[in-house]
Amino acid sequence: MEKFDYIENPHRRYNPLTGEWVLVSPHRSKRPWQGQVEKVVEDVRPSHDPNCYLCPRNERIGGESNPDYKDVYSFQNDFSALLQDTPKGEYADGELFKAESESGVCKVICFSPDHSLTVPEMEVENIRKVVDLWCKEYKELGDREDIGYVQIFENKGPIMGCSNPHPHGQIWASGLVPLETSKESKTQKAYFEKHGKTMLFDYLNSELEKKERILAENDSFVALIPFWAVWPFETMIISKRAVSNLLELSDEERTGLADIYKKLTIMYDNLFEVSFAYSAGVHQAPTDGEKHPEWHLHMHFFPPLLRSASVKKFMVGYEMLGTPQRDITAEGAAKRLRDLPLKHYKQK
Amino acid sequence: MEKFDYIENPHRRYNPLTGEWVLVSPHRSKRPWQGQVEKVVEDVRPSHDPNCYLCPRNERIGGESNPDYKDVYSFQNDFSALLQDTPKGEYADGELFKAESESGVCKVICFSPDHSLTVPEMEVENIRKVVDLWCKEYKELGDREDIGYVQIFENKGPIMGCSNPHPHGQIWASGLVPLETSKESKTQKAYFEKHGKTMLFDYLNSELEKKERILAENDSFVALIPFWAVWPFETMIISKRAVSNLLELSDEERTGLADIYKKLTIMYDNLFEVSFAYSAGVHQAPTDGEKHPEWHLHMHFFPPLLRSASVKKFMVGYEMLGTPQRDITAEGAAKRLRDLPLKHYKQK
Ligand SMILES: O=P(O)(O)O[C@H]1O[C@H](CO)[C@@H](O)[C@H](O)[C@H]1O
Ligand SMILES: O=P(O)(O)O[C@H]1O[C@H](CO)[C@@H](O)[C@H](O)[C@H]1O
Repeated sequence: MEKFDYIENPHRRYNPLTGEWVLVSPHRSKRPWQGQVEKVVEDVRPSHDPNCYLCPRNERIGGESNPDYKDVYSFQNDFSALLQDTPKGEYADGELFKAESESGVCKVICFSPDHSLTVPEMEVENIRKVVDLWCKEYKELGDREDIGYVQIFENKGPIMGCSNPHPHGQIWASGLVPLETSKESKTQKAYFEKHGKTMLFDYLNSELEKKERILAENDSFVALIPFWAVWPFETMIISKRAVSNLLELSDEERTGLADIYKKLTIMYDNLFEVSFAYSAGVHQAPTDGEKHPEWHLHMHFFPPLLRSASVKKFMVGYEMLGTPQRDITAEGAAKRLRDLPLKHYKQK
Repeated sequence: MEKFDYIENPHRRYNPLTGEWVLVSPHRSKRPWQGQVEKVVEDVRPSHDPNCYLCPRNERIGGESNPDYKDVYSFQNDFSALLQDTPKGEYADGELFKAESESGVCKVICFSPDHSLTVPEMEVENIRKVVDLWCKEYKELGDREDIGYVQIFENKGPIMGCSNPHPHGQIWASGLVPLETSKESKTQKAYFEKHGKTMLFDYLNSELEKKERILAENDSFVALIPFWAVWPFETMIISKRAVSNLLELSDEERTGLADIYKKLTIMYDNLFEVSFAYSAGVHQAPTDGEKHPEWHLHMHFFPPLLRSASVKKFMVGYEMLGTPQRDITAEGAAKRLRDLPLKHYKQK
């Protein structure tokens, strides 16, 4: 019998950050697709859209008007999923019915006054202002007694449920630590206690040696496809230094984060020459008043496209009931992204 | 301060089957939607489509032809994600890089020769034949030494990645127990050891007393919205008797399963008067040669639609990076489904 080879044979891979597995079926990337195709959105927009509720000076749904902001701007989400004045309490009936009240703050972060831009098309110095605002919000929200975790994220593209193309992200800050970050808290803590180093510090250094899954690098950050990626072109941005949150970044490192964010999203856009949809977000230490030396700052990018601008990966059926599944390997995806030019296709 | 009320206030609910939480934001169901809308597919199809690779007598992509089958028919998936001849082995580099070969069998199950039908439009006696085939496949595949779990599921509708509208489902049978079922194995085992009864037996009886989340019932099965549902109209079908797998069902119970499958999917279709998309599947005991008295047979249904035939719930951003989130409560969703007629809208 031939020897097992994870580039060719179906297998599962372990994600040490979540403690979960993904099924990989490399041979299946050849299957034809006759199912639903996505609308490819023509991405030509004016710099100011009078109907956009995120553009400067425009009125929002709540009735308030945006200021004439010049770089970044944050405000409380008009349809916040978490509210500040939720009465504390819980409901329990035996072991099987348990509910707990949850409170928090939801904010919207405009990345630029220019309605026509996206992160890969912005200047690094302007993305840096987004990073600075993330830091400010993480500090202000995280310092509050009632906030245990500050989740910063960006949904981009209509197929990712984003209802407004104006460059923006969100923050949902909650009293309790969310599900995904509490998985990562547990695994990182166990690793740190065992090794006295962060898991992602060791992981990143192994990847830098192996080189197979590295996409881009600067002095402070690396963009790569994790060994255990689930989405076809799922990536991570990891800080070279083991910092637990955004506030520990130096001035240069903040700019480094802006730089790698731009580089990675340019690769994404260049892959199918389309404004590439994704959900991305920062994972960092909870703000529960404890020290978190085990936490290693990183960003996740989860993009849904699979083989073209219009064919996405469906995480359905087996993926929902059994195990998440991917066809193209992490190594194959990394090669495709890494080989792309670092100049945005629109500037050709 | 007012008292916490899980019908009105943001909160999180615990899922005792997975050990995970869901965030519920009841007040948010009022938010307007300006984002992507789905194509509503006109669902008029011929009884036989010469271009459909699942219709009787037609040729499949692999070159084989389907027999002139009269009720149900199963065959090996031409693009199987799991293969039988995968060489055994693993790859490991420290704690952070782990891959294991995975083998198995993927099959397609045609529910009917009639291309135009869907489960809610089929006769109960014909759905019963689907249940019988599930039993046969579970037995045959499960008896094999190399198969530890048999995952039976149905993806319905193009927005659920289903590429062919012919009524059909799939089976992915693997050597190892998949992620989601291993979570449920663990929690059900702990509960059974503590109480000497299955978790879902106790859960179902509590729900039958509370009545708030029950949708439909017959002598052997109940359809309900679980307290911890994530998707807007997520439901479960649970057997009244604590059976661990399909083979333990009596003749009447098999028909009972067919009956409740039809009733539930009629409610779904009637909700927005559209052929309702979902991923559904059977969760039952692993076929690893052990006895599993802790396992309680059930089906999950995960439908993506939120507020109309064209507006779905996006599980993106916060849901991927933080905690799954829903707006409408399980109780509100149950009331809407339960109040619908049990006659299919097309027969009006
Ligand atoms: O095999 P199919 O129906 O073409 O594929 C569908 O179901 C599979 C199993 O849930 C998924 O992996 C695919 O993404 C989906 O498109
Ligand atoms: O607040 P938005 O951008 O309208 O909403 C979007 O992001 C939210 C947070 O990930 C999701 O819950 C919504 O389903 C999605 O449409």
